[in-house]
Amino acid sequence: MSRPADAEQAEPASLPEGARDVLPVESAELAAIEASLRAAFAGFGYREVRTPLLEFADAMDRAQEGGIGRAYRLFDDHGEVLVVRPDLTIPVARLVAGRLAAHPGPLRVSYIAERLRPAPAGRAQRAEERQAGIELVGLPGAAADAEVVALLATALRALGVSDLRIALGAVSLTRAVLDGLGVDESRQSTLQEAARQRNLVAWRRAAEALPLADDTRRLVVELPSMRGGDEVLARIAGAVPSAEPACRALAGTLALLDAHGVREAVMVDLGVLRDWGYYSGIVFEVYAPGIGRPIAIGGRYDGLIGRFGAPRPAVGAAVLLDRLHEALAVRNGATAPMSGVVLSGGLEGEVAAARAIRAAGLNVVGVPDEPEVAERLAEVEGWRYVARRAGSGYTVTDRATGSTIDCDDVVEGLRSLSS
Amino acid sequence: MSRPADAEQAEPASLPEGARDVLPVESAELAAIEASLRAAFAGFGYREVRTPLLEFADAMDRAQEGGIGRAYRLFDDHGEVLVVRPDLTIPVARLVAGRLAAHPGPLRVSYIAERLRPAPAGRAQRAEERQAGIELVGLPGAAADAEVVALLATALRALGVSDLRIALGAVSLTRAVLDGLGVDESRQSTLQEAARQRNLVAWRRAAEALPLADDTRRLVVELPSMRGGDEVLARIAGAVPSAEPACRALAGTLALLDAHGVREAVMVDLGVLRDWGYYSGIVFEVYAPGIGRPIAIGGRYDGLIGRFGAPRPAVGAAVLLDRLHEALAVRNGATAPMSGVVLSGGLEGEVAAARAIRAAGLNVVGVPDEPEVAERLAEVEGWRYVARRAGSGYTVTDRATGSTIDCDDVVEGLRSLSS
Repeated sequence: MSRPADAEQAEPASLPEGARDVLPVESAELAAIEASLRAAFAGFGYREVRTPLLEFADAMDRAQEGGIGRAYRLFDDHGEVLVVRPDLTIPVARLVAGRLAAHPGPLRVSYIAERLRPAPAGRAQRAEERQAGIELVGLPGAAADAEVVALLATALRALGVSDLRIALGAVSLTRAVLDGLGVDESRQSTLQEAARQRNLVAWRRAAEALPLADDTRRLVVELPSMRGGDEVLARIAGAVPSAEPACRALAGTLALLDAHGVREAVMVDLGVLRDWGYYSGIVFEVYAPGIGRPIAIGGRYDGLIGRFGAPRPAVGAAVLLDRLHEALAVRNGATAPMSGVVLSGGLEGEVAAARAIRAAGLNVVGVPDEPEVAERLAEVEGWRYVARRAGSGYTVTDRATGSTIDCDDVVEGLRSLSS
Repeated sequence: MSRPADAEQAEPASLPEGARDVLPVESAELAAIEASLRAAFAGFGYREVRTPLLEFADAMDRAQEGGIGRAYRLFDDHGEVLVVRPDLTIPVARLVAGRLAAHPGPLRVSYIAERLRPAPAGRAQRAEERQAGIELVGLPGAAADAEVVALLATALRALGVSDLRIALGAVSLTRAVLDGLGVDESRQSTLQEAARQRNLVAWRRAAEALPLADDTRRLVVELPSMRGGDEVLARIAGAVPSAEPACRALAGTLALLDAHGVREAVMVDLGVLRDWGYYSGIVFEVYAPGIGRPIAIGGRYDGLIGRFGAPRPAVGAAVLLDRLHEALAVRNGATAPMSGVVLSGGLEGEVAAARAIRAAGLNVVGVPDEPEVAERLAEVEGWRYVARRAGSGYTVTDRATGSTIDCDDVVEGLRSLSS
């Protein structure tokens, strides 16, 4: 009965590939990030929705030719194939086309949730990705495009992401150029595949083989490397007159981004060519210093909602929360001490004192009234204050400054230390 | 090319059994409830953790003899069986025994997440249940039990749940009575099974067959119907002396609940006998007016963490968020109008005005500058104000009062309406 504990201790349990636990410090940071994004989204009238974790596989497969791709699949009791939500935009499109079909528009929805995809074999990639997203439904034009980009920039700046860079392309513009130059469907799909794979060498090879005049061929070769502002759009409109409306639309978006106060973060970048089959207008990626991959992505996908009901134009974006967290951690470095008091006896003899401190607005962590327990817990968890009964009063320490005082009233003591 | 839209409209997509979407009004209410609970949990020093949606089935099955029961199971790429998290306490226990094993304690963690279980055949039951939970690890006694109950009551009261009723039982006390009366294992498991199924008839039948003196047999028969305060505990301790320590422990919890200011919401109720195999001490259920099932449940399970590593005592609780939401909806009735402005032209010509109103702290919903659009959207979504450009100024309406004013500055106009 009294064998040493380690002789009979259970083996630790491991986690599936791509899964992880999030410990308290990071969880608190993520919760604060999410609360801030939620407030920013509400500031533009976006209203949150929640969709279920499990969907019918065939509903998700409708979103795209060839289906939804890698996903966790399972069977329900009736033998139907379910998937653990591999994407968040598609369920929202399903919801918008279904229960929100009667909404007069413009319809703004947001979500904060996770999507799951098994990592490709051999890639140490997280299976679960939490995203905070927005969708603006019912408006086809540049003003809606600009709002989504501007809201994203505003939301990220409110969190303190400085030196944001937003790379703004337009699948519709690239397609207008190729159509205007008479590039046939088969050659366009070769280019599209190169763009999808971000393979600039393959793009160049396909572009150089186009039966075009030298200068227009060079334009196509250079297209995914074109970066800048209005001058890029002017050059394209000059070379391919039928692409002029598409250039004018993107220039209109840039002008509105100026009105929104975020123009200087945005650069036209025709190399942003995500999922050509899915997006139908602008596409963009948001970068923060120190993080190589985008912390947010988005674009216009006017064809998606129609796969679930009456077609409606839509533009949206998603913040990739783990990457945003990483960007903020790079910026912030060490974590500030947590504002709260570890109170000896706060679970038992000092319950009344604990209540009084909480009523004054501070968090209180009760610990047994034993030597060292409070100090050790404050150290491990990063709490700023420790307090304990001393005679008829209390001794209170501010661990950030090292000051210790004795006081009759513990709330007063904490107030004098923090002032 | 111009067939009527409904001729080619896609079929709506349905949802798997037990799944549902949550629309904006309810989502906002749930988000507000979660933010309030998160703050209450932090007030007692509980720190949030997040665990993954997918776990190894065999890890979850360790929690209980006979395994975890109904769950969504699937295979990973290596043929291992995974489950979509069917419970939230078990993953937290796994985490506490693993990566948090070196924490000196007391360790307080919280979570807000969903667990999924397929509904039993023929039961129209939700598969996905979102819960907000707390776990206090490392303390075995009545003070820890009292803190968890008190925190739950405090958190629910902060949300405005009035007339809370907390039914507090103790598996340990019931077991002490049966052990003290010499009831053998086989008869105890018959009683345990009756308790698990909440079958009071079966309990009575098993109790009446016990080979005991009439008065003690009557005590066992009545045990699950005993409700009240200290007098109930005194009666049991008088009848079964060896159960006196267990009665004293529960009386100690009641005394501490008094210090925490929540005693009057709590009633000893020995009919609360959830999952005898899982809980090891107190067990409780929290009820709100108008809701037949508990809105929160909890108890002590000192055996759970040891299934994943070094044993540590633990007591915890979970709020069932959909039921809590229902309880608050019963209380609140109609929803208050949303504080925000629908602004005509706010996406385009009035972007600067929209920014100014947001900077003043109000949400702004931009709509195209067309007749009726703003009014219709405000009506459908419940926004309080509408504003539009009128000459060199603005016309602003407060839909809650019906007042309309003209003003030069839209922010000033909104201020004067709301003051």
